Amino acid sequence: MDRYRLLIDTSDEKGLVYHISSALYECELNIEQNSEYVDKENNKFFMRTEFSGKVDSNRLLSKIKTKLPQGANIKLSKVRKKHIAILVTKESHAFGDLLIRHEADELDADIVTVISNYDTLRPLSDKFKLNFHEINADSLSREEHEKKIVEVLETYDFDYIVLAKYMRILTPSFVQKYHHKIINIHHSFLPAFIGANPYKQAHSRGVKIIGATSHFVTNDLDEGPIIYQDVVRVNHEYSASDMKKAGKDVEKIVLAKALNLVLEDRVFIYGNKTVIF
Amino acid sequence: MDRYRLLIDTSDEKGLVYHISSALYECELNIEQNSEYVDKENNKFFMRTEFSGKVDSNRLLSKIKTKLPQGANIKLSKVRKKHIAILVTKESHAFGDLLIRHEADELDADIVTVISNYDTLRPLSDKFKLNFHEINADSLSREEHEKKIVEVLETYDFDYIVLAKYMRILTPSFVQKYHHKIINIHHSFLPAFIGANPYKQAHSRGVKIIGATSHFVTNDLDEGPIIYQDVVRVNHEYSASDMKKAGKDVEKIVLAKALNLVLEDRVFIYGNKTVIF
Amino acid sequence: MDRYRLLIDTSDEKGLVYHISSALYECELNIEQNSEYVDKENNKFFMRTEFSGKVDSNRLLSKIKTKLPQGANIKLSKVRKKHIAILVTKESHAFGDLLIRHEADELDADIVTVISNYDTLRPLSDKFKLNFHEINADSLSREEHEKKIVEVLETYDFDYIVLAKYMRILTPSFVQKYHHKIINIHHSFLPAFIGANPYKQAHSRGVKIIGATSHFVTNDLDEGPIIYQDVVRVNHEYSASDMKKAGKDVEKIVLAKALNLVLEDRVFIYGNKTVIF
Amino acid sequence: MDRYRLLIDTSDEKGLVYHISSALYECELNIEQNSEYVDKENNKFFMRTEFSGKVDSNRLLSKIKTKLPQGANIKLSKVRKKHIAILVTKESHAFGDLLIRHEADELDADIVTVISNYDTLRPLSDKFKLNFHEINADSLSREEHEKKIVEVLETYDFDYIVLAKYMRILTPSFVQKYHHKIINIHHSFLPAFIGANPYKQAHSRGVKIIGATSHFVTNDLDEGPIIYQDVVRVNHEYSASDMKKAGKDVEKIVLAKALNLVLEDRVFIYGNKTVIF
Repeated sequence: MDRYRLLIDTSDEKGLVYHISSALYECELNIEQNSEYVDKENNKFFMRTEFSGKVDSNRLLSKIKTKLPQGANIKLSKVRKKHIAILVTKESHAFGDLLIRHEADELDADIVTVISNYDTLRPLSDKFKLNFHEINADSLSREEHEKKIVEVLETYDFDYIVLAKYMRILTPSFVQKYHHKIINIHHSFLPAFIGANPYKQAHSRGVKIIGATSHFVTNDLDEGPIIYQDVVRVNHEYSASDMKKAGKDVEKIVLAKALNLVLEDRVFIYGNKTVIF
Repeated sequence: MDRYRLLIDTSDEKGLVYHISSALYECELNIEQNSEYVDKENNKFFMRTEFSGKVDSNRLLSKIKTKLPQGANIKLSKVRKKHIAILVTKESHAFGDLLIRHEADELDADIVTVISNYDTLRPLSDKFKLNFHEINADSLSREEHEKKIVEVLETYDFDYIVLAKYMRILTPSFVQKYHHKIINIHHSFLPAFIGANPYKQAHSRGVKIIGATSHFVTNDLDEGPIIYQDVVRVNHEYSASDMKKAGKDVEKIVLAKALNLVLEDRVFIYGNKTVIF
Repeated sequence: MDRYRLLIDTSDEKGLVYHISSALYECELNIEQNSEYVDKENNKFFMRTEFSGKVDSNRLLSKIKTKLPQGANIKLSKVRKKHIAILVTKESHAFGDLLIRHEADELDADIVTVISNYDTLRPLSDKFKLNFHEINADSLSREEHEKKIVEVLETYDFDYIVLAKYMRILTPSFVQKYHHKIINIHHSFLPAFIGANPYKQAHSRGVKIIGATSHFVTNDLDEGPIIYQDVVRVNHEYSASDMKKAGKDVEKIVLAKALNLVLEDRVFIYGNKTVIF
Repeated sequence: MDRYRLLIDTSDEKGLVYHISSALYECELNIEQNSEYVDKENNKFFMRTEFSGKVDSNRLLSKIKTKLPQGANIKLSKVRKKHIAILVTKESHAFGDLLIRHEADELDADIVTVISNYDTLRPLSDKFKLNFHEINADSLSREEHEKKIVEVLETYDFDYIVLAKYMRILTPSFVQKYHHKIINIHHSFLPAFIGANPYKQAHSRGVKIIGATSHFVTNDLDEGPIIYQDVVRVNHEYSASDMKKAGKDVEKIVLAKALNLVLEDRVFIYGNKTVIF
């Protein structure tokens, strides 16, 4: 039996749960998991329902639509394995972690391609027989380089771009093209230590805890909607390089957790924030 | 406008969310917060709804009841400040933490009485003008001692008994009398280190993390449904007594968090486990 | 037998541990706890030794001094209960936590006075029979207000000033007067959310973890040397006010832990950072 | 310049730091890192020193030995990349994590062989060109199976055996043969949930936090000296299988951290506990 996910976000009003659940009931669908959240301050309603059954999508959607406020966002999708494109630079920890999960069928996605500005990770990628493309940025403008990346990307069918320690800043036009489809792992506990060398910044500030943040990429550097964060304790004995080493374990786990939330359609983007069920 | 909480647990079947939300909708009630969970393995459905409006309880309950499976548990209650009785022995950290919260109106409960097997904490209790009763256990059997406690308890009106480091084991008859109304803080990360002197046990085992567990009391010592747990990292430099000291901070925070969950009617007891919204 | 603590920080050179331990050995002192750290990058050596015995301070210090590099900082002190002055505003959680610890003799300090810009916490302070001074800031310049505070402070003998949620910014001259003697608790995971309303900032940024930071106060707002930090997980359901509530538990524990480290002479201030044994 | 590590554990007495540091000083060695710990309760002294220089081992050791109590354990070793043999069964997460670290030169060890009771992980092992041996246990007694493993192991030169989710219990004779050389990752927060199926036990008990423990293997199942532990929060929505999935991330990080501590000679085994610098 097919499984589906229904994601709704809309302005709030009385009776939404009733209206939506009645549509599902009338279509004789079996709710497996149901989550709602109301942001009272902004009068917004969010709902994610996972259900199984024999679905007539048009009928279900039209039943729901008639009962919802104007401007409601409704997304109905059959549960399927999604496709991801991975961008990397030279570091292997986050990329390697995704590879091992993928190989063990513990990542709910197919990796359709790996693109890097260096050739460093090709040997690792090759072990897992992935389509690896080195697109070197030497003597190219940022725009020229990205144009080449887009050309390769567009030969693949993908749902999300995962920046698994891709160490270049993306242009607004690239970010716009893949709006809310780019997931990054930043090596700090945002909003602390935005920009380059966060571990050096953290070391210099003398913090006692460091972290990592996975977020959707927007045009404001390191300012996009946060999906997941975690931290690890450090002390004065940690050099900036020790912090970097300790941070790698956090980075890879945070990216994998965030990615899994996205792949399971658990993440609503809402202004510059996320609602996660 | 009054606020209410509706808690339902029942065997699962298709349409429960629809049926319950339709009853609330027909009564023109305004859902503030709604949470459901289905335990598929055991075919159980849980739902907690917080709503406001002008409520005709009988009408609402009868509307809901007719649509639910046989044997469904339905609890409708107006939101009010609950009453707690606190039992202590000699240590002040968990008790004191509740006092400070209570004084700042950050504990959603009235403390109706404090009962102890020693007089040690009377001065602290007196500062906050609470009804403190020393009920000494010397030369009394466990049953005789508890009989005296019950006599005092029964002169008060309370919803829950909070064991804020009450260091005596309760008899089955006491536990039975206050079934699912007694909340304990155990000074270990249960089920590790059941019984006496958990910090000594932890030190002797050489663990690298210690914790605390708040749970409902049942007849099986330290085996009741767990509400909340937390941990703190230790190392070889910690003596058993250092662990005890470090653990106190965890104990008091865990007890307060668990108590708040219970006071907000967020906790379903379900076999020997809890479902917490 | 008296206990002593010897704290040394100096430029590093070969043989320091040998030279210092030989001085202690020749004075027949019994080392209880010994910690060293070398910051290679900056060629700095730190050592903290706790020992007991019959100490001729002059003899010991002169023995040590002759063997250490020019400009070494040497601090020898007998272990004693320190004195603290507490500054508060209106919130009771951090202050109350210190009170309960103090009452149970679990804070290694005497509270010599409590000063506030409001009268709100006087009743709580009075319960514990402390010297409470309201020094209202109405219609006073910052300098005039602080002048009054200093006048009161100077009637007491204290080692440290603890800002237990004192919600006013101190002037450079006050900070300078009590250089490295003022310990603050900031309600964010610094350096994230410097300044006012960190929970509002955190809510608006949509972070998934919030925290608290205890640090020495310097003239750069929220930029002083960090002593201790901790965090707690939040999610989209937390309003700014829920975050504030959840943060209070972290704040009070972080402040108490930082304060205990300072009271036990475990903290070296080193540029804008700390070395903590 | 070569780097060395000196590890000493002995009964405590006055002057040990002085005697050891004087020997190092007289040999003109440059201490890079120095840690000591005294267990007062048991009168035991532990010291780990990392130093560089031109070392005459015999001279240094004899200088040290003459000053230490009878029965002192002294271990002087040149810093070198150690060799590990990995035992696995079918799960890839912990093994794969070690592979990625190894490939990136972030594991301070060479993997000399991989041995498994199944062929499942051969393809993953082969990608990294490791010596993989399937030693099937079918129709073999535990002793016969281990005899075959030992035969293969003994063809390699290794310092430690890493059980990266090797799901068979080892016999006392195997454990004895590789005394204090076998490092295991147990999928629970020991001592909670000893034995088989800890996630099922954890689910059934309704815990709110699960964990993992890396420890040296002794004859008492899951009772060996603990090296490192970590935990992750769960809730009622987690099935036993969700817990298992969440636990995998903790397991692999805990094993890698514990292994790194051992590889850097930071771990003293002391009775059934560890002292870790």
